[in-house]
This record gives sequence, C-alpha cells and structure tokens, in this order.
Amino acid sequence: MAKLVFGHKNPDTDTICSALVYADLKGKLGENVEARRLGEVSKETEYALEFFKVDAPALLERLEDGAEVVLVDHNEFQQSADNIEHAKIVEVVDHHRVANFETKEPLYFRAEPVGCTATILNKMYKENNVELSKEMAGLLLSAIISDSLLLKSPTCTEEDVAAARELAEIAEVNLETYGLNMLKAGADLSDKSIVDLLTMDAKEFTMGDSKVEIAQINTVDLNAIYEKQGEIEAEINNIIEEKNLDLFLFVVTDILNNDSEVLALGNGQANVATGFNVNLENNRALLRGVVSRKKQIVTTLTDEYTK
Amino acid sequence: MAKLVFGHKNPDTDTICSALVYADLKGKLGENVEARRLGEVSKETEYALEFFKVDAPALLERLEDGAEVVLVDHNEFQQSADNIEHAKIVEVVDHHRVANFETKEPLYFRAEPVGCTATILNKMYKENNVELSKEMAGLLLSAIISDSLLLKSPTCTEEDVAAARELAEIAEVNLETYGLNMLKAGADLSDKSIVDLLTMDAKEFTMGDSKVEIAQINTVDLNAIYEKQGEIEAEINNIIEEKNLDLFLFVVTDILNNDSEVLALGNGQANVATGFNVNLENNRALLRGVVSRKKQIVTTLTDEYTK
Repeated sequence: MAKLVFGHKNPDTDTICSALVYADLKGKLGENVEARRLGEVSKETEYALEFFKVDAPALLERLEDGAEVVLVDHNEFQQSADNIEHAKIVEVVDHHRVANFETKEPLYFRAEPVGCTATILNKMYKENNVELSKEMAGLLLSAIISDSLLLKSPTCTEEDVAAARELAEIAEVNLETYGLNMLKAGADLSDKSIVDLLTMDAKEFTMGDSKVEIAQINTVDLNAIYEKQGEIEAEINNIIEEKNLDLFLFVVTDILNNDSEVLALGNGQANVATGFNVNLENNRALLRGVVSRKKQIVTTLTDEYTK
Repeated sequence: MAKLVFGHKNPDTDTICSALVYADLKGKLGENVEARRLGEVSKETEYALEFFKVDAPALLERLEDGAEVVLVDHNEFQQSADNIEHAKIVEVVDHHRVANFETKEPLYFRAEPVGCTATILNKMYKENNVELSKEMAGLLLSAIISDSLLLKSPTCTEEDVAAARELAEIAEVNLETYGLNMLKAGADLSDKSIVDLLTMDAKEFTMGDSKVEIAQINTVDLNAIYEKQGEIEAEINNIIEEKNLDLFLFVVTDILNNDSEVLALGNGQANVATGFNVNLENNRALLRGVVSRKKQIVTTLTDEYTK
C-alpha cells in the first residue's frame, strides 16, 4: 500500500504543492507515496497547477485505521485528516509551531522556522542529490509566493527569498510577473458565497482553554468584501454556536497595501482589542502591516489567552 | 544570554553527552550555547566523561520565564526542565516519539527514528562541515553504546552501528573493549540502596485501565542483586500500595548475556507469565534476549492488558 502525503484541511497553495512535490521526491528515491488533498483547491492554486500543467491530487475523505501517512505543512491534528489519531504518522515536514500532535512511536519530524514548507523541500532535493524538474520547481515557487505574499510577509526569511529566486530560474518564469498574476487569480472572490469566504482558509486553534478560529482571505478591494458585513456576521455567529468557539476572527488581507482589516466576534473580542492595541469599531479594526496569521496573529492572540 | 541545551530528567549517557556535544557544535557555528543537566550524572556517564576528560554540565534547577532553550534526547514536557511551559524552545533534536509537546512559534524540530540522539548529532557535524574532536567523538560514541547496550538492543539501527564504528576511530578506542568497560562502570550498583535500585530508572505506564510500573537496572551479576530478594519484595509491595499499581515489574538486565531476569509483583503477575510465555517461580522469570523496556516489554505488556 502506498503511503499518503497530504497537507492541512482548507488547502492553500503551499499545502497542495508541497504534497505533490514531496510525493515526486519520494518516488524518485524509490518509495511508494501518493499525494492527497483534504479539500477543494483554491483559484490561486488552480492557477499554479494549470500554469505548470500538473494535476491536483485526489481528495482524501477519511483515513483508514493504521494507514501510513506523511504530513506536510501542518502537524496539529485538528487541521489534519479525519481519523489521523489512528493513523501511523511516519514523517512530518513543516514550518509551523508544534501543538496537538502525538505519536506512539519515534518518527521523522522536520520542522524549520522558514516561511514555507516548499523552502525545506527545495533543500531536501539538494540533500538527496535529486534534480528538480521545471514543473516541480514551479510548484515550489508558487508555494513560496503564496505563503510570503510575493516575499513581503514578515514570515519570509532570507532562505525563502534565495529559494524563490533559484526556483524561478528553474521554472523559467519572471518571479514578479508570475507571482502577481498568481496572487490576483487567488484574490478573485467574485464567485464566492459568504460561507466560502469564511471557510476557504479557516484554521482552528486551541489557546489556553479556548477555541479560536481564524479565517483569512486575500483581496485587492477591502470595501467590496465588507459591503456584506451584516451577512458575514450572521454566518460567523452560526459557526461560533455550532463549534462552541470563544472567538472567530475574519482577516481580510489587502495584498496591494499589505494591511489587514479584521472582523472579530465572540466572547474573546476583547483579546483582539488588547492584543493588537486597537479599538474595534463596528466589530472591525485595521491592523497595519499585519498579513501573517501565523507570525502576527496567532502569536499575539495566544499571548493574550495564556497571560 | 546564552541559550541552554539539555536532555531529560534522570539523565542517562545519551542525554548528558548530547547536550555537551551539541553545545560544542553550536559554539563552533558561532552561537552562544551552554549545556546543562537536570539531575545527577550516573556512574556510566561519569566513566565516559572521565575517560575523555570532559566536565559534566552544570545542574539546572528551574528555567526562568522566557529562557531560550534547546532540547536534546526528549520532547515530552513531563520529562523536561521545571517551567519548560514558559520557556522559548528554539530547537529540538530527538529520537523519541513526540507527545505532550507544544510551542507558540515555529522552531527547528528534528526527530529521527534511530537508536540514539548522538547518531543524529554525528550527521549534523558533517552537514555543517565541522570536524569532530576526539573528545566529542568519544562522548557521542558513549551515548550510542549506552542506548544500544553495545549495539545489541532491538532499538539499534544500521545508522547507529555505522556511526559507532566511525566514532570509535575518531575517538581512538576499541569499540568492544571501551564499550564493555563503560557498561560495567554503569552496572556497579555497590553503593545503591534497595530504594535506589527500584527508582533510579523507573517509569509508570497506563495499560488499558491499569497502572503498571517498570523499573530497570543493568548488571553483570544477576545473583548479587537477587540475594536481597526479600527486602526488594517488601519495598515493591510498599510502592504498589502507595501508587495503587496493578503490577510492578523489576527488570534486571544482564549486559554480558543480553537477557533479563524479572521480578513481578501485584495483581497483574499473570500478564507477565502469559505475555512472555514463561512460568514465574518465586515471582521471578528469565526473559531470554529481552533487554529493551520500550521495544520488548512495554509493547508485550500493553498487548496483554488491552487484548
């Protein structure tokens, strides 16, 4: 039986591309590994896959007991496949914090504090002396552009920048042009429902004893999103009740100006105000220079919830 | 402020040596890192340190809030320094399962399913093109010999064996001779009380709904230990009552023959007999070829308790 490699639920470009590329590397090293996805592919990811003519991985509904799996771009069980608790996790390659993760036996676990899983995979090709194809380089490049908002996010390290420049050459694209086109394709929200906006890139976190969900979308037009604030709030309140959340934070990131306008609902609203030192007006606040959920939002809120 | 690097509580040779050696590597890479220990150094470790003329690390009583730390040879918080929950863990190098571990931020986390942390550190010198000194090679070698009972434990992988042979050359020692001398130094129990023998390397496990404690010691003379069987049983019965255990298994491992003579007390005695397919005579049984608590004893008993 093939091992399955997959990233997190609500897959983003790094998660999809890293699963595909790591399956490619493992295959070239003689292992029987297949990539999977845990949800729908975004328009941004679709743009990258079409550009480099690679098929999306098959959808994984639920893991069998005892299935051998490789996790990329995540480790927290609540972000992983259903029934992950009863799988055999043989390896993890990730660039996030470690939490809510547990195995019965020793495993390969490689996490590095870089901006993107793809940057680690780029190194792993070199370490194993395996050459990257144009297509696989293109997918890794797309992942870095996505996670770093074209190298502008504070999560972006020098290693990510160097990898991106190197990969753009192998992929035979202009980094800036290709990158902006890909991000714009992802920021096209015209066909999304309110529920789509709130779930397409949502992650749940345990902070102290509280459950916090943070959904993020990228846009080139903040106002167009908040025209529907009333409907958005009604839907968020449904989600809070259904999942018994302490806080739902909706983060709308302006990819042209690199700011985020957030909408916060739930008992934990005050933690947003104190954590970011802002006043919420009409449940909203502009967070200047904030674009990274991981490095700027999760850390700040975790501090508030655990202090 | 220097970062602190340390292994687990009840330090063994891998934990002490890996902390010292990783501090050496980091120092050579220009980082300010100091090794610490979380408890008394064993006689086995003392032998290795004296042989290679390296000082033991200083004792760490409790971490300051926010201290930057590097964990080696463990990750589970209950095995780590007091106040680890409020430290900033920047890196982990380990060969155990991952459990009860959590960070707020991304970090370097490197775990591999090999027999010893030292085997991973040996690779890291090469990856960073740093030469190992005779002394540091000697410490890494000692750690591998300790964790693998001179390459005979079922936890020992081909990578550990290759590393040990390579390190013995750099350390300028004969692997077998040095290894047996070091293990014998650790098996000198002449100054230990009965309570010491039962607690110096004891771990408690939950199996099904039962509490099982397994204490292990190494010796070159099984009979010398069991001369005091009466006193040992009296003390074990105290521990069983105090902790409300279903089973206490005292494992005396003969490092010359690679067998273990076990003493089992408690209601769960029968699980030892059926699990290992032996008759307990006078509460004792010889388990041929059994030396690894993790890989041979815990697994067998867990199966008995959960079938």
